[in-house]
Amino acid sequence: MPQPQVAIIMGSKSDWPTMENAAEVLQQLGVEFEVEVVSAHRTPDKLMEFSANAADRGIKVIIGGAGGAAHLPGMVASKTRLPVLGVPVQSKALNGMDSLLSIAQMPKGVAVGTLAIGTAGAYNAGLFAAQILATTNPELAERIESFRTAQTESVLAHPDPRVAE
Amino acid sequence: MPQPQVAIIMGSKSDWPTMENAAEVLQQLGVEFEVEVVSAHRTPDKLMEFSANAADRGIKVIIGGAGGAAHLPGMVASKTRLPVLGVPVQSKALNGMDSLLSIAQMPKGVAVGTLAIGTAGAYNAGLFAAQILATTNPELAERIESFRTAQTESVLAHPDPRVAE
Amino acid sequence: MPQPQVAIIMGSKSDWPTMENAAEVLQQLGVEFEVEVVSAHRTPDKLMEFSANAADRGIKVIIGGAGGAAHLPGMVASKTRLPVLGVPVQSKALNGMDSLLSIAQMPKGVAVGTLAIGTAGAYNAGLFAAQILATTNPELAERIESFRTAQTESVLAHPDPRVAE
Amino acid sequence: MPQPQVAIIMGSKSDWPTMENAAEVLQQLGVEFEVEVVSAHRTPDKLMEFSANAADRGIKVIIGGAGGAAHLPGMVASKTRLPVLGVPVQSKALNGMDSLLSIAQMPKGVAVGTLAIGTAGAYNAGLFAAQILATTNPELAERIESFRTAQTESVLAHPDPRVAE
Amino acid sequence: MPQPQVAIIMGSKSDWPTMENAAEVLQQLGVEFEVEVVSAHRTPDKLMEFSANAADRGIKVIIGGAGGAAHLPGMVASKTRLPVLGVPVQSKALNGMDSLLSIAQMPKGVAVGTLAIGTAGAYNAGLFAAQILATTNPELAERIESFRTAQTESVLAHPDPRVAE
Amino acid sequence: MPQPQVAIIMGSKSDWPTMENAAEVLQQLGVEFEVEVVSAHRTPDKLMEFSANAADRGIKVIIGGAGGAAHLPGMVASKTRLPVLGVPVQSKALNGMDSLLSIAQMPKGVAVGTLAIGTAGAYNAGLFAAQILATTNPELAERIESFRTAQTESVLAHPDPRVAE
Amino acid sequence: MPQPQVAIIMGSKSDWPTMENAAEVLQQLGVEFEVEVVSAHRTPDKLMEFSANAADRGIKVIIGGAGGAAHLPGMVASKTRLPVLGVPVQSKALNGMDSLLSIAQMPKGVAVGTLAIGTAGAYNAGLFAAQILATTNPELAERIESFRTAQTESVLAHPDPRVAE
Amino acid sequence: MPQPQVAIIMGSKSDWPTMENAAEVLQQLGVEFEVEVVSAHRTPDKLMEFSANAADRGIKVIIGGAGGAAHLPGMVASKTRLPVLGVPVQSKALNGMDSLLSIAQMPKGVAVGTLAIGTAGAYNAGLFAAQILATTNPELAERIESFRTAQTESVLAHPDPRVAE
Repeated sequence: MPQPQVAIIMGSKSDWPTMENAAEVLQQLGVEFEVEVVSAHRTPDKLMEFSANAADRGIKVIIGGAGGAAHLPGMVASKTRLPVLGVPVQSKALNGMDSLLSIAQMPKGVAVGTLAIGTAGAYNAGLFAAQILATTNPELAERIESFRTAQTESVLAHPDPRVAE
Repeated sequence: MPQPQVAIIMGSKSDWPTMENAAEVLQQLGVEFEVEVVSAHRTPDKLMEFSANAADRGIKVIIGGAGGAAHLPGMVASKTRLPVLGVPVQSKALNGMDSLLSIAQMPKGVAVGTLAIGTAGAYNAGLFAAQILATTNPELAERIESFRTAQTESVLAHPDPRVAE
Repeated sequence: MPQPQVAIIMGSKSDWPTMENAAEVLQQLGVEFEVEVVSAHRTPDKLMEFSANAADRGIKVIIGGAGGAAHLPGMVASKTRLPVLGVPVQSKALNGMDSLLSIAQMPKGVAVGTLAIGTAGAYNAGLFAAQILATTNPELAERIESFRTAQTESVLAHPDPRVAE
Repeated sequence: MPQPQVAIIMGSKSDWPTMENAAEVLQQLGVEFEVEVVSAHRTPDKLMEFSANAADRGIKVIIGGAGGAAHLPGMVASKTRLPVLGVPVQSKALNGMDSLLSIAQMPKGVAVGTLAIGTAGAYNAGLFAAQILATTNPELAERIESFRTAQTESVLAHPDPRVAE
Repeated sequence: MPQPQVAIIMGSKSDWPTMENAAEVLQQLGVEFEVEVVSAHRTPDKLMEFSANAADRGIKVIIGGAGGAAHLPGMVASKTRLPVLGVPVQSKALNGMDSLLSIAQMPKGVAVGTLAIGTAGAYNAGLFAAQILATTNPELAERIESFRTAQTESVLAHPDPRVAE
Repeated sequence: MPQPQVAIIMGSKSDWPTMENAAEVLQQLGVEFEVEVVSAHRTPDKLMEFSANAADRGIKVIIGGAGGAAHLPGMVASKTRLPVLGVPVQSKALNGMDSLLSIAQMPKGVAVGTLAIGTAGAYNAGLFAAQILATTNPELAERIESFRTAQTESVLAHPDPRVAE
Repeated sequence: MPQPQVAIIMGSKSDWPTMENAAEVLQQLGVEFEVEVVSAHRTPDKLMEFSANAADRGIKVIIGGAGGAAHLPGMVASKTRLPVLGVPVQSKALNGMDSLLSIAQMPKGVAVGTLAIGTAGAYNAGLFAAQILATTNPELAERIESFRTAQTESVLAHPDPRVAE
Repeated sequence: MPQPQVAIIMGSKSDWPTMENAAEVLQQLGVEFEVEVVSAHRTPDKLMEFSANAADRGIKVIIGGAGGAAHLPGMVASKTRLPVLGVPVQSKALNGMDSLLSIAQMPKGVAVGTLAIGTAGAYNAGLFAAQILATTNPELAERIESFRTAQTESVLAHPDPRVAE
């Protein structure tokens, strides 16, 4: 099995319908990744250990998704020098505003790169992880360029919103 | 030195002007406490160890204050069965709304008792800690009753807001 | 009938689907509790009397759930030295943001320990009440430790979110 | 001393700089009023008694100002059939948004007429109380009409915002 | 036909499912009322005329419901000395937060008594209108007292939320 | 005196420090304008008359600034077919969020073009009014193009933010 | 084919159910328009070119709809001197509050006229575009007056919200 | 001059007091960077060109700061495959909530890694950029580890918030 470069972790199994969007784009771009439930609040020791060891295991970027008082991405970031991307999962009562603020408003000295609330954010977290890896991987950079060109062309090919496809 | 029953911790030295209100009321009520800076993001190992050992050290209640993406109270709660009280410190940009949501919106299974944003919340965290201890300490219960009576009488004694005191 | 140690009260019968989560975890942890509708606005005298007498009746912790302009927990707290936990019930128009602010933003001198909006908050209120009682009840403390261990192990046992259970 | 028709109450002496605006307009309109600090949380018994007796004492309208988790107006309304006007005092952290929601979002069956946050709201509470009394007091109605005409004319007299007065 | 004392107006026919709650409680309390669609934005002249004439037609209180940029209650208030009650109708995108702020945040000198967002607010507007009229109508005051007693007793009669009725 | 093409109105003299930014840019672009205080709530008849007559007087665009429950732009729009631009003045308690929602959230059928909160919004309202007039005024269009080119060049000329000017 | 005077563009085909409301009212008022998908983020070059050329192609007003981090209207405005109207499309997580702020809060020097969130805003954008064109098109002005009269009469014809139509 | 690896751009010179925090940490970590004012709205062509060429010029990561309707980071991201970090500058009226939502809520397919509002976010953007580069630069990784160790030790060295330093 090839070495995963990106780890996608999430606070709960129920975050998977959101977080699978990160997996989808990484797969599409040919980036190896692993997926795991790691709960900041229910499995804090695993979180600490996972975060402390990720770099040594060869992981390059960590994507963490969580909702509500979403502490997962920030706590992972406190234990690794790897870039950590945070996905605010849409929460039931406050629609992810709590998740967004819990993830984005990190204090000086420990950083999390935050994406949008929900599935678009998860998808973009995967894409952003690939963009990070591509800074020193010309082949991946090319695949991202192709992905983007295809995305642009797909929009250009359907300029009239009134036409059914 | 008597055994502290309450631990007041905070993410940063700059939270002390808020958190000293918790200390003030505990002192007034004759409850022993300790005070320490423990940062969830900058000293995560200390946070984990502190939280794991607090009960064994004889601590009964932990008060944690933090601002912004305030993960301290929730992460402490993930490592101890002691009741953890969270004080949302007023943040610069969002006035503590981020702190409040980061502390209060904990997921099912790991609880934090959240107080108001800022100094009133810190004061009330100290009072609430004393109220917890008083559930099995009749003398402290009496001191709280006296404190409350005095508080009530002080308001009753000055019914006219137009009169300078 | 054994003496209840926790009182779960709520502003309206319609809050029960939320508040039964508090009852569920207390039952699971073997804590005796009572359940009652006490409306701050429609039965204020009952609220005052209930709150004034709760400590004498042997109640140790009060859990109050209410939505919208949620005055129940704060008003109970004004009439008892017992720790009062507040559960912001998710409201129709504002999704519980009004409930959260009405409960959490108490002034200096009268404290409410606030939990998350909705069912997670109610569940955690029950858990937090048990945690309070456990500070002087070693057997309950042990049951809480077991509960937490089981919770952790349940997450650890299912690390892959893609696998159906 | 003439019988006051309006009672202006507030949760704390510190609310007076806001609430004196209510007094100012009532005085200007020749409506008798009384002023008192009545704290929902620190003097709940006084609040209950005050509210229960206000109608019998000849009060016709109650104005209550409070900030943060502002329970005063709603709790007064729970104990009297008199119209209760609520003034959300501007709070420190959340600028009165907590006060506004705590006062306005009352449940079905117990009503509070809520005014704007801060001094404008306090002023308008006084005006609104006079408008209520004027529904059956033609002389007061006339004074209000004059007040409004003067207000309109004062704006009309200074149409150019660039001219210093 | 008896003289209506309360006018219930609203910006659009689609507000009726909300506003009929005001009508319901007025009917129950035996207060005569009229109901009409008056749109601030689509029928401004009617609004102005309606507001200017309401007092002369014998109306004592006006209840205005509107959603979104809800200008109806404030504009009515600008043209009458009668007390105007505003009901923020729950809006599609912002759930009535826009309606609430548009109605409550009136400037100094023109007052609107604002109720809660949605059906509870409409119901309470009807109740509040009756409470205003009751300040000089002892029989209505008695009917309101009975209404409130019944409301209280109905809650007291069903203290256990777990029992189906 | 040349015929003004733009009317800048505002709810209160205190809005002038904000609204003078609209005047400034119109002057700079050589567009004739008039300035007047017209209060929706304190001078509703003037507002109605002003709005109804503006088109006949030769006005082409109306700019209205107001804060809090800001009804001015929407009510003007209800009485004229001219394009009405709304400037949400920054309010004291809610920083203009109330002004923004009161102006922007107009119902289907009566439109207001809303600009940003505060001075930037007022400035842009003046600019936008000129842009409207320029759609059929080639000379003004050219002056706007020059204005924009100068603006762009001014930014381009100072690319290094560390250099004092 | 007649020269379109208004261009309706949107960030995604999925915005059409919102934006077709702009088309509907323009059609009703006899204003020629064109419709196209132009994505700020996925087709930025097309956006730049479209915006730079619109005036030369004879377009007079541009309506841009977008949701979430809605950059389309502001970026169009940065490349044209034509008036640009922005429609905040209702977003999934935040109900369009993000769209509204992203569109309305433009900095000094580049203006967007923002309408309400969602379908009402799209409809009003079409109407506002027509109002702009009508400032120098008396026939269109008359059609708008008729449209508004019909709208007013339709409300006046159904004053009783209780009557089914 | 060594090849800069990080570009720090911002919408206005007035953003420098915020953005210099990004420069500070990069300097401290020995990462070469460049600094430039590039305004999305006032210099859109420069933005497009800058973004399109950055990768070819050897830039590896772009940090963009902007306030209000903050389109800069998202528009840069639309024109480059490099990772773009967005810093929401604290805005005057809405304290950066508008900046945060304008930057974070990007649609599926174009990603921005968003940091906290204000100076902490700018600092963390610099740190995060270094963390990205360190994924393939062991020496920089070591410097980051040292930086973090020093940060942790500095907190550990001052555990008592009551002691002046």
